[in-house]
Amino acid sequence: MEYRISNRMQGLRPSAIREIFKYAGDPSVISLAAGDPAPESLPVAEMKEILSALLDENPMAALLYSQSEGHPPFRAAVKEYAARVYGAFGPDDELIITSGAQQCMDLTCKTLCNEGDTIICEDPSFIGSLNCFRSYNVNLVGVPMEHDGIDLEKLEAALKSNPHTRFLYLIPNFQNPTGITMSMEKRRAVYELAKMHGVLILEDNPYGDLRFEGENLPAIKSMDTEGIVIYAGTFSKILSTGMRVGYLIAPRELMGKIVVAKQCTDVHTGMLGQLLCHRFLAERDICAHVEANKKIYAEKCRLMLGEMEKGFPAGVTWTKPQGGLFIWCTMPKHVDGADFAMRLVRDHKVCVVPGGAFAVDSKSAAHANCFRMNFSTPSPEKIIKGVGIAGNLLREMI
Amino acid sequence: MEYRISNRMQGLRPSAIREIFKYAGDPSVISLAAGDPAPESLPVAEMKEILSALLDENPMAALLYSQSEGHPPFRAAVKEYAARVYGAFGPDDELIITSGAQQCMDLTCKTLCNEGDTIICEDPSFIGSLNCFRSYNVNLVGVPMEHDGIDLEKLEAALKSNPHTRFLYLIPNFQNPTGITMSMEKRRAVYELAKMHGVLILEDNPYGDLRFEGENLPAIKSMDTEGIVIYAGTFSKILSTGMRVGYLIAPRELMGKIVVAKQCTDVHTGMLGQLLCHRFLAERDICAHVEANKKIYAEKCRLMLGEMEKGFPAGVTWTKPQGGLFIWCTMPKHVDGADFAMRLVRDHKVCVVPGGAFAVDSKSAAHANCFRMNFSTPSPEKIIKGVGIAGNLLREMI
Repeated sequence: MEYRISNRMQGLRPSAIREIFKYAGDPSVISLAAGDPAPESLPVAEMKEILSALLDENPMAALLYSQSEGHPPFRAAVKEYAARVYGAFGPDDELIITSGAQQCMDLTCKTLCNEGDTIICEDPSFIGSLNCFRSYNVNLVGVPMEHDGIDLEKLEAALKSNPHTRFLYLIPNFQNPTGITMSMEKRRAVYELAKMHGVLILEDNPYGDLRFEGENLPAIKSMDTEGIVIYAGTFSKILSTGMRVGYLIAPRELMGKIVVAKQCTDVHTGMLGQLLCHRFLAERDICAHVEANKKIYAEKCRLMLGEMEKGFPAGVTWTKPQGGLFIWCTMPKHVDGADFAMRLVRDHKVCVVPGGAFAVDSKSAAHANCFRMNFSTPSPEKIIKGVGIAGNLLREMI
Repeated sequence: MEYRISNRMQGLRPSAIREIFKYAGDPSVISLAAGDPAPESLPVAEMKEILSALLDENPMAALLYSQSEGHPPFRAAVKEYAARVYGAFGPDDELIITSGAQQCMDLTCKTLCNEGDTIICEDPSFIGSLNCFRSYNVNLVGVPMEHDGIDLEKLEAALKSNPHTRFLYLIPNFQNPTGITMSMEKRRAVYELAKMHGVLILEDNPYGDLRFEGENLPAIKSMDTEGIVIYAGTFSKILSTGMRVGYLIAPRELMGKIVVAKQCTDVHTGMLGQLLCHRFLAERDICAHVEANKKIYAEKCRLMLGEMEKGFPAGVTWTKPQGGLFIWCTMPKHVDGADFAMRLVRDHKVCVVPGGAFAVDSKSAAHANCFRMNFSTPSPEKIIKGVGIAGNLLREMI
């Protein structure tokens, strides 16, 4: 049998970093490549108590079908949380529970994009979202990043030269992979530009809770008087990535179609995860939990930055994130990040992600001299050892 | 803002049965409309023990990211189960865990179908799958059902007149909505027809475990020497619908692309559900559990059929399922099922699903004089009362 693959999936190949991640499965490898939260930050004892209580008190709520929109009292609690913490829920909005934030990207594309439409993204950007967009056979246009977020002039040019742009995809807080935070001025300017061009914004905020430095900035969604911002949130980074619970906020008028798309895709998000998150929000002190998390992240980030300062050679620069999980490193132009990452994991058992993986144009050489490091998952000992080994190889290669 | 919806979602409207289901939310309504398993059949105490143990023993396995393909030891256990019970896993196949069986339909379409391609379905068929297919803007072609499964002559004609058919969607066991089981002869004949026309089969088997009468028949997948059958399975009906754990079996050569589609869609299926199912398979006696379930389903089905025999007027006929959850009723041609269902729920507080909801051509009047009843979810008292009330209205309307 010769299998004919759909046009949308035809061009999507297993990513080049798969080869590198094959080595990362080896338990003796120090992984600085993950996107997981700090394991020690997760409230395991509390989650166990909650799971036990919910199967005692109302097992059928966990075990039988629920609504595609999500468990109603949980939705109400998340609306309140998103409005209070981010200003991300307004009077004309609706909110549904999704199977992780990743599903927000999938449902948004399914509802809005035809093949050949354009999506404008920060360049580099999160590989999971980029691949989701690619799976809809859309035209991806990348706009470079500056230290305070997307380059406004180039964004304006991209909007002008791509009249079939469906939406603008942004991660304003501690962006993946760069760790960069978009300034308040740029948030306002980006919103105005999108409004002027009649283009929607998909604002992805998976790391927003984890700000360990500087002041919280309101979400772009909080400025949304025109109903042009769709907002993706998640409990992955503060409660659990493995349970796959996110949420999508969109103008009510648009949400009807998004709910139909959700229903067609997986009926509804798993109830164990929904009820677990709901009880945590309703019965525990989520703000105290987030504050405790921030201390862990601040400490780990500080440690990694300090070790890089000590061990990385001149010619390598990096971002200093105010929150989130990632640091983005830039090597001299002639050093290839994929080669560096492969040698680092194969010969020295330390894993980082080469920058090219995050290029909006996957066929280009953009970000080839960069790599991403994660400070949330490894232990302090592994951060010290891993950064030291990476520094040694950098000195050798530069 | 005027929102432009994608071509694929443009035509998909919230289903007509939504109005009827609005009434079903009223707790005083007797619902014979559900698709849930019998609540008393679910192993609540065992699931609670397992959840507690897995958060004690290895919480990070439940709480952190896992592989898109699913938790490896769980996948191995499901392969063994699918091979042993259904003969549905062969040497050239691969298996991944999905977010319910619904996601099998979504990933199959995403991987195989371009807009405008044809999918051939049994008519009537499961509304959730039909809507998923519609969300890919494909051409749906329905083939009528006979008492022993799809009409072979009409299937052959449909295959001949639709050369761009991507796959044939079938529910061979206790089909939703008809309760009909495809005979062994037809399974063989359908496989040969698909092979001859170079068309794939998507075999959906959500109810297969729940056979309470007659001999188990092997899955069409068990005959698949050519690599043309994709198989959708689930733990929804025997363990829990709410946790959303299904599985997809496909020829290994095709699975690479399906895994990329899965990754783009929701990264992986929630780990709490995966680990719960895995431990149930590995540590408990799933066969004994299924046997106990069959007794519950046999009893409830027998009760409903008996009450229908007593209370339904001449001119109404119905299927006698050998398993599953549903009975399909046909009224005289002039009686409108949507009208019957609306009056039944609004005026008499009993909810059934009108047959038109399951028509492959949603604009046609097919199955307008039919309705679907579910015997698994309601209690015996509610079955007796609900069928009695439905019988009274039927007598009035016929």
